[in-house]
Amino acid sequence: MENLTTPKGFLFAGTRCGLKNKRNDLGILLSEVPARAAGVFTQNQVRSATVDVSRKAIENGWLRAIVVNSGNANCCTGNQGNRDALSMAQLTSSALGIDPEDVAVASTGVIGQLLDMAKVENGIADASKLLSNNPSPFMDAILTTDLVEKQAMVEIRPGAIIYGVAKGSGMIAPNMATMLSFIATDADIENIDLKQLVQRVANRTFNRCTVDGDTSTNDMMIVLANGASGIKVSEIEFENGLAKVADDLARKIARDGEGATKLVEVVVQGSKNPEKIAKSIAESPLVKTAMFGCDPNWGRILMAAGKAGVEFDPQKATLTLTASGESHILYEMGAPAAYDVQRVSAGLKSDTVTIRLDLGAGEICTFYTCDFGYGYVRINAEYHT
Amino acid sequence: MENLTTPKGFLFAGTRCGLKNKRNDLGILLSEVPARAAGVFTQNQVRSATVDVSRKAIENGWLRAIVVNSGNANCCTGNQGNRDALSMAQLTSSALGIDPEDVAVASTGVIGQLLDMAKVENGIADASKLLSNNPSPFMDAILTTDLVEKQAMVEIRPGAIIYGVAKGSGMIAPNMATMLSFIATDADIENIDLKQLVQRVANRTFNRCTVDGDTSTNDMMIVLANGASGIKVSEIEFENGLAKVADDLARKIARDGEGATKLVEVVVQGSKNPEKIAKSIAESPLVKTAMFGCDPNWGRILMAAGKAGVEFDPQKATLTLTASGESHILYEMGAPAAYDVQRVSAGLKSDTVTIRLDLGAGEICTFYTCDFGYGYVRINAEYHT
Repeated sequence: MENLTTPKGFLFAGTRCGLKNKRNDLGILLSEVPARAAGVFTQNQVRSATVDVSRKAIENGWLRAIVVNSGNANCCTGNQGNRDALSMAQLTSSALGIDPEDVAVASTGVIGQLLDMAKVENGIADASKLLSNNPSPFMDAILTTDLVEKQAMVEIRPGAIIYGVAKGSGMIAPNMATMLSFIATDADIENIDLKQLVQRVANRTFNRCTVDGDTSTNDMMIVLANGASGIKVSEIEFENGLAKVADDLARKIARDGEGATKLVEVVVQGSKNPEKIAKSIAESPLVKTAMFGCDPNWGRILMAAGKAGVEFDPQKATLTLTASGESHILYEMGAPAAYDVQRVSAGLKSDTVTIRLDLGAGEICTFYTCDFGYGYVRINAEYHT
Repeated sequence: MENLTTPKGFLFAGTRCGLKNKRNDLGILLSEVPARAAGVFTQNQVRSATVDVSRKAIENGWLRAIVVNSGNANCCTGNQGNRDALSMAQLTSSALGIDPEDVAVASTGVIGQLLDMAKVENGIADASKLLSNNPSPFMDAILTTDLVEKQAMVEIRPGAIIYGVAKGSGMIAPNMATMLSFIATDADIENIDLKQLVQRVANRTFNRCTVDGDTSTNDMMIVLANGASGIKVSEIEFENGLAKVADDLARKIARDGEGATKLVEVVVQGSKNPEKIAKSIAESPLVKTAMFGCDPNWGRILMAAGKAGVEFDPQKATLTLTASGESHILYEMGAPAAYDVQRVSAGLKSDTVTIRLDLGAGEICTFYTCDFGYGYVRINAEYHT
């Protein structure tokens, strides 16, 4: 794991409290001073108690800490689940000497089982003694079946850092893909409306990242800004920086999708709603299995574009695949283009593929997804309760 | 294949003209007298020329014949594709001595390749000499990678038959799932608005059947009514009969989904839009892989319900799995129910599973889907162009 500079005034901790067998499963992120905070939360009707607790904590725009466990989603756990989520905030606040209403809570893992609160309590006590500026144990503690740790950093100006971590689409039966991301900055963003800015950035990064189209009950992205660098940044500087970190993390989540062998970028330009078309292509199992099979199956890509419910003229569409440093036009002006199937297929063995669909002048939207192969089925079908 | 009674005054033919290697690939369905006709066609922006030709032919409410080829979808084939679709109607009309505007045309198979019209011409000539009341060769001729033939029949009243055939979600790269269904009746439906009735029936049968959420460029359902039985039926009798045939075919399509080992019925009652929730569950890869793995993974089912964008109260939801003749409540009143995981898992080995989600009083919607396993990936990833 690369060593990235973390922002001033943030401390990280991760420990293993026994919710999972072999990996860290409890993490704390602390800002040494009150930090401005904003978040984006799952839209799912069925949601973890942690989502409600965190949404409430963040309401006044300030946080000091985030406590996270993996291995148990604390979802569909009734009133006891609500009490346990509140209790995690309370335990963290006591251990750190801060206000419980300044603590956000996140969980990821199995649905429908009560948290083992004795373990969680020990974990919080341990973690609160391990706080340091090394983010690695925290990064580990939020993962489920992710294969790799996910972090990203930009330096907006010399000395002003945005640093973020994320977990992606892992699965521990009986549960589902969960996206969590926590981003911290020491930039001073005093006059910026953080809430709206975070929503805008999420809309064009994490909300354009899909592994299987399923929305978790526990998804959240939280941004903390503590101003500890003393460097004031403009809204546009900060938004661009945050978007870069979030975009980088979204790509990493898609690339590490369950069973994935490659990152697939879907770029659509033109039409009234390129985002809807890009999403339809990125979520199509037929497109994703073709990518797994290294099959330049442009008919499926056009089908997926056409079913999005957005009007466009297939006679004016151009479809290009880029992989292994080569671009190939597969379809142009309503008819198949001439291309070397063997060569395009060979190119698709790359770990990164870009599907580009041009529908005319207009806005460009990029979606991130991954291919869809035996690994996805194995991970999601063969883990019995 | 069961021998079902076909309606009077309809003749069927199927032959192999060489578009596919080993199976019939060209079929004709003929009504001996003009038949009232209505159809439902794909909503995909990218569509086969056959969809336009058939939609035009059916516009005046009458047809005599349908000509179908499998092995080539005649889609994304530019102007030559349009000419070829028209030519199929023309050749069929000449061979049968009927008006070309009374012939609907359907194709299914590879996208983006021109039809070999010499073969198609021979096929039409052959098939027009093979017409009989045995539907089997026709049923064969419309299949792609379907494993089984699909037919259904009801007798609305003694002597008045509705008989239908369908092909389901088969794949021949580079193309996609295609649903075709042709339904013939000898009932006299003189005073019935067939077009609206067919749309209503499609909405609650074929439009509630999903294998992978992908909408083909070539989908169509056509109903022909020639009145040859001389038996007048009421609108409600006819609608119920047609719905039964279409429902039966929709179930058969889902059961024979690519790589499927079982039919999964998703029944949702209550909320403002039970159909949207049922669709979300039926299309969720996480639910479908759990069904493949015989895993009573109710967390995923609730997640898929919750992401549909329809409001409901998870505290009042009840989730029941029925398989192998036993029903098990898995989740009730906001919390996991007590059930025997081993026993439910064993039951899920059945070839038919019903997921029932009760959200309160109100409308019931049933969706048909199948499980999602290695077979789907194999069929769709390993067939290279």
